[in-house]
Amino acid sequence: MKTYPIQEMKNVKIHGRTKMGPDFLPLFWNNAGVEVNCTGGELWIDLEVDSAFYEAWIATELNGAFMSRQMLHPGTCSICLYRSMTPGPVKNVKFYRELQAMGNMERTILLVKGFRTDGEFLPVEEKPYRLEFVGDSITSGEGSYGATEDTEWLSMYMSSSRNYANIIGKKLNADIRIISQGGFGVLTGWDNNPNTNIPSIYDPICGPAIGDFNEVLGAQEINDFEAWKPHVIIVNLGTNDASAFRQPAFTDPVTGETFQQRMNPDGSYVKEDLERFTDAVKAFLAQLRKRNPDSYIVWVYGMLGYDLSVPIAGAVADYRRETGDNRVDYITLPNTEVDAYGAHMHPGYASHVAAAKVLTRYLAERLGC
Amino acid sequence: MKTYPIQEMKNVKIHGRTKMGPDFLPLFWNNAGVEVNCTGGELWIDLEVDSAFYEAWIATELNGAFMSRQMLHPGTCSICLYRSMTPGPVKNVKFYRELQAMGNMERTILLVKGFRTDGEFLPVEEKPYRLEFVGDSITSGEGSYGATEDTEWLSMYMSSSRNYANIIGKKLNADIRIISQGGFGVLTGWDNNPNTNIPSIYDPICGPAIGDFNEVLGAQEINDFEAWKPHVIIVNLGTNDASAFRQPAFTDPVTGETFQQRMNPDGSYVKEDLERFTDAVKAFLAQLRKRNPDSYIVWVYGMLGYDLSVPIAGAVADYRRETGDNRVDYITLPNTEVDAYGAHMHPGYASHVAAAKVLTRYLAERLGC
Amino acid sequence: MKTYPIQEMKNVKIHGRTKMGPDFLPLFWNNAGVEVNCTGGELWIDLEVDSAFYEAWIATELNGAFMSRQMLHPGTCSICLYRSMTPGPVKNVKFYRELQAMGNMERTILLVKGFRTDGEFLPVEEKPYRLEFVGDSITSGEGSYGATEDTEWLSMYMSSSRNYANIIGKKLNADIRIISQGGFGVLTGWDNNPNTNIPSIYDPICGPAIGDFNEVLGAQEINDFEAWKPHVIIVNLGTNDASAFRQPAFTDPVTGETFQQRMNPDGSYVKEDLERFTDAVKAFLAQLRKRNPDSYIVWVYGMLGYDLSVPIAGAVADYRRETGDNRVDYITLPNTEVDAYGAHMHPGYASHVAAAKVLTRYLAERLGC
Amino acid sequence: MKTYPIQEMKNVKIHGRTKMGPDFLPLFWNNAGVEVNCTGGELWIDLEVDSAFYEAWIATELNGAFMSRQMLHPGTCSICLYRSMTPGPVKNVKFYRELQAMGNMERTILLVKGFRTDGEFLPVEEKPYRLEFVGDSITSGEGSYGATEDTEWLSMYMSSSRNYANIIGKKLNADIRIISQGGFGVLTGWDNNPNTNIPSIYDPICGPAIGDFNEVLGAQEINDFEAWKPHVIIVNLGTNDASAFRQPAFTDPVTGETFQQRMNPDGSYVKEDLERFTDAVKAFLAQLRKRNPDSYIVWVYGMLGYDLSVPIAGAVADYRRETGDNRVDYITLPNTEVDAYGAHMHPGYASHVAAAKVLTRYLAERLGC
Repeated sequence: MKTYPIQEMKNVKIHGRTKMGPDFLPLFWNNAGVEVNCTGGELWIDLEVDSAFYEAWIATELNGAFMSRQMLHPGTCSICLYRSMTPGPVKNVKFYRELQAMGNMERTILLVKGFRTDGEFLPVEEKPYRLEFVGDSITSGEGSYGATEDTEWLSMYMSSSRNYANIIGKKLNADIRIISQGGFGVLTGWDNNPNTNIPSIYDPICGPAIGDFNEVLGAQEINDFEAWKPHVIIVNLGTNDASAFRQPAFTDPVTGETFQQRMNPDGSYVKEDLERFTDAVKAFLAQLRKRNPDSYIVWVYGMLGYDLSVPIAGAVADYRRETGDNRVDYITLPNTEVDAYGAHMHPGYASHVAAAKVLTRYLAERLGC
Repeated sequence: MKTYPIQEMKNVKIHGRTKMGPDFLPLFWNNAGVEVNCTGGELWIDLEVDSAFYEAWIATELNGAFMSRQMLHPGTCSICLYRSMTPGPVKNVKFYRELQAMGNMERTILLVKGFRTDGEFLPVEEKPYRLEFVGDSITSGEGSYGATEDTEWLSMYMSSSRNYANIIGKKLNADIRIISQGGFGVLTGWDNNPNTNIPSIYDPICGPAIGDFNEVLGAQEINDFEAWKPHVIIVNLGTNDASAFRQPAFTDPVTGETFQQRMNPDGSYVKEDLERFTDAVKAFLAQLRKRNPDSYIVWVYGMLGYDLSVPIAGAVADYRRETGDNRVDYITLPNTEVDAYGAHMHPGYASHVAAAKVLTRYLAERLGC
Repeated sequence: MKTYPIQEMKNVKIHGRTKMGPDFLPLFWNNAGVEVNCTGGELWIDLEVDSAFYEAWIATELNGAFMSRQMLHPGTCSICLYRSMTPGPVKNVKFYRELQAMGNMERTILLVKGFRTDGEFLPVEEKPYRLEFVGDSITSGEGSYGATEDTEWLSMYMSSSRNYANIIGKKLNADIRIISQGGFGVLTGWDNNPNTNIPSIYDPICGPAIGDFNEVLGAQEINDFEAWKPHVIIVNLGTNDASAFRQPAFTDPVTGETFQQRMNPDGSYVKEDLERFTDAVKAFLAQLRKRNPDSYIVWVYGMLGYDLSVPIAGAVADYRRETGDNRVDYITLPNTEVDAYGAHMHPGYASHVAAAKVLTRYLAERLGC
Repeated sequence: MKTYPIQEMKNVKIHGRTKMGPDFLPLFWNNAGVEVNCTGGELWIDLEVDSAFYEAWIATELNGAFMSRQMLHPGTCSICLYRSMTPGPVKNVKFYRELQAMGNMERTILLVKGFRTDGEFLPVEEKPYRLEFVGDSITSGEGSYGATEDTEWLSMYMSSSRNYANIIGKKLNADIRIISQGGFGVLTGWDNNPNTNIPSIYDPICGPAIGDFNEVLGAQEINDFEAWKPHVIIVNLGTNDASAFRQPAFTDPVTGETFQQRMNPDGSYVKEDLERFTDAVKAFLAQLRKRNPDSYIVWVYGMLGYDLSVPIAGAVADYRRETGDNRVDYITLPNTEVDAYGAHMHPGYASHVAAAKVLTRYLAERLGC
């Protein structure tokens, strides 16, 4: 078998925002990965991994079919993607990250170093459509694996393999990217933390991936938005902003400042708090538009309840009116059925399938396919 | 068998807005009907019917299960609801109109005169929930019967038996009412006719049922909104308003005046035209609120496309902001899948089932059941 | 409108075994009916009906889609099959019997007298495949309509419209015939009555239709097996034979003779009783073969339990060995799921759909389609 | 973390036929595995693996939910079953073999050496029912993973995780065992090899696991049938015997002897060849009965076609008649739908789900649950 360093490979298709390193390719995001067409009878991928509490999980596909899913441990390792196959015919293999991008005090780093095979690599086609999914834990696939009684916040429950984004990509023959962080909102996180919002991490290659090493990897550099222009951006946010209204105030551990989205005694939202949320929605649309002038944007919502449906949609409408930018839309996705929850009261696989069905129909019409 | 004149019956449950006549009960709307618990071995219903081009269609249920569906012809007639059953045990029977309320130049009148049975009638329970569905041809069940290649506008293709409203009522154990007119919108009909809008017909018992005879029946009297207060009003409108933007101007045949909702050359909606649509949405919400101060209102949209999703939702948001009335909501329903169309490019039964699933989940949470 | 007497019509497709009378066409069996391609704007069918306890039920289809279902009463009547349609284009209409053939002391007679239309009739195509279904109450569609708590034995609960035979015919684009009688077995009825067996009624046009009037109609004449040769005969029998083993002996009300299929104390079947059952299976296969030398025969079983699966299949195997006739087969159908029962503890519509799926797959492979 | 050698563990539930070694537990069969209830925050399993062409594949479950699936390589290794969980609460973990037992010239050996954890192990409950599945490649889950265009015979395409046996076990809350070999039949293998038959390998712990090392592991010792008595044995065989009739003769590479199941020119089976097949069915039933005097036996067939349905069922009937042993049954399972094939023209996951549905209904009634 011959070793192919990733940085020298011409025929590798890279999924997800990233930046090639001198001798590695970081996989930051959920569903970030590498895809090859290999003629070899055997194929291995060489990795370098670092993690502590939140270990990396990955999945592999062979010819488009899910084949394996496993936890990775810190250190270098090689994963056999297939072996004992007939040399010659092309095998399409995708290796991708199951775990969302990790930030904060934790780091979960997954670097592709290269491949080893007895064959060679042929070009991998670009799909006719590109879809970018921006979201929270739902889009991180939290709960798409795991028993309904499991309630811890752990790597293994997240996935892109059973994720609605992945299902849609396969159905529409589209390349997909996922930008998601569990607990994050448009304005605040689920706990009123005003820092855990997606807009603040959208522009860099991988905003949440902080720390010295991630900086070396280029995570904090502004993403090259010219290089991969999505036909449609699907924003699935608001679920944690809705949660915030029901949570106590968040106190910043450093500054001591507090932040809270408040409800009135009658259960309605406090006017100015709701407005800063809807302002955040509009601002995020403007930010997305600035970065993606050609993309259609659809905000989707509802897989875990419809609390903020009207405020979000109203903000989308206001954005349209104020900017004249009509290439933004709003639909709701089916709420998770009572028997379709996965781990941690998040949408289970059946719920991802149901959401994918509705959204596939929407996108097919939008894309004209 | 003994004859029970409808106006003398104590134990009959009346479905749908109507007004008891001296010796008849008019069934104006889709799903309007009469329900009895009968101990007889045999049960007939006596009817008086009038129609011309658009004949009346009705359906019957026995113990909650669909049993028959047929066309009725002008004149008096009796329909056997069951026979040859064991006298004594209670049989629950519902007789209801499949065809929407009919107006304009046509009249399709269906009057219940009474029942005949060898048994007696026992009280029929009220369901714990009441749901009012307000809509257009989708809610009139157009296309829920008929082959996909059938494209004429005829009575037989409409139904409440295969209607999402009916499916939801059964799943949630709720009494339902339907107020719907094919081709109608919030502001205009599908063809830019500014008169075929639902708000203008919502207040009377049966607004579209015009003409001398319908007036005698009481159709144009203001409905008694105190008598039946829905827990939730589901408004499924906007599909025809969206259509109008793509149609030529409507010319009033009497006044010669024209009306048109216009698109800009770039496919966006002309600002003032869109505003009069969103104004109509807000005005209709205010009208519904005035008539139904205690009801929750949810606007649903999307079974035939999402064109006006953002404007409608924006109007709902504006209505909330302007009135402080937060008991209005907005969600989208799954667009009809390509293989789920029924007759006349309308949602087929499978599409009604899919919409009912999403909306049942929503309503169950709203109703706390 | 012009009247078309049935006996003079060239362009009518007749479904089901029957014999044209001087001025009527009897519809004996479940799914027996007439199908026309009519260019008129309006179409009526003229009928003559007789019944007492068990009234006739019928259904209609327009362009292949179910449209109506209703009870008929004794006397002459006309049913409007459609009206208000655009004259000119062809409308395909099927009018068919929902109720199984009725015999014994009851008679339920349904005669087609002709049609009336303002258009004309064009030829109706023969389907590429012909399927004959021979069975008991399952194949009579008993319980395919009605609530699960309904347990009376009544006409209205039977159907061909929601019958697996009908579903299969549509899926495979096949013409179908049904020969079925509720309560009947291969050897005995459900109550050990040795006379209520399907073999004894298979050869005539409509064996169960006894009595003077049915005789006049030709019901007891031997069917013309040359005129309609099924590609496959599906025999769905054995459920009532299984029941008999659990029932007390039957006493013939006329002769006083008794008959009983017996179980041993350990729950196994008494050897000679089981043998006369399996002998009856083999004899019926021989009878079917004699009448249908070219047809493939598949015995299906299991929609209401698998008690006699092995004895039936063993008899099919013995028949093959003893005759060298290998064009007989055996498969089981899915047992009715606990939540899929219809009325009278019989398969509901969902169970018919499930059985149809398995059998359609089987027949498609058999027919090479 | 403390190491728990497998041979010293009291609270480990062993799945599948095996024999504890001095310091290892071999996992021979598909779905063979170990299950623990662990209080630790972290749990690892220590393994020793040997393989060449056909590598071992395994899967893990956490609290009954599928979590991971991966290829193993020769040597010793540790797999982390979970980590970062809250110490204290019980986590139920199952580690099991995806790959069927391997024999012939290949060996694929998977030995559990023990566990490591920071917690302790509590007892694992026995399920109320025990089911044994005996079969061929279908029951080895071949094709339950992999793309439909994949046609090589490789480890990765087999599974118990997406296997109907596994689905049924979960639905019925039953412990299951699988005894299966791809390509094997009752009399011959798919290629007329008379040695690749299941009866010849049924009695030992793991008949196909030949060779010196497997002998040391105890694979060829007679299984302890007293230790685990299945309530029901499901035999899913005959598919390869059917194939043999369409294949050329098999020539034994050692003796030069040939063997062939032959068809007559008319497509029927040669009488004596069919008889040796049905004799083999009967003999296998007798063998199963001898080893499992208390078990109910049901032969199932059809997921890849019904060619031998009648001969198999006839043999079951003959076996009943000849032995008086009526506790054997026969049903067919749904043939794989055209769109439900997995890899290598074998049943895909959707087909396993469909078969499991029918068989679950059967077994639930049989078990009275």
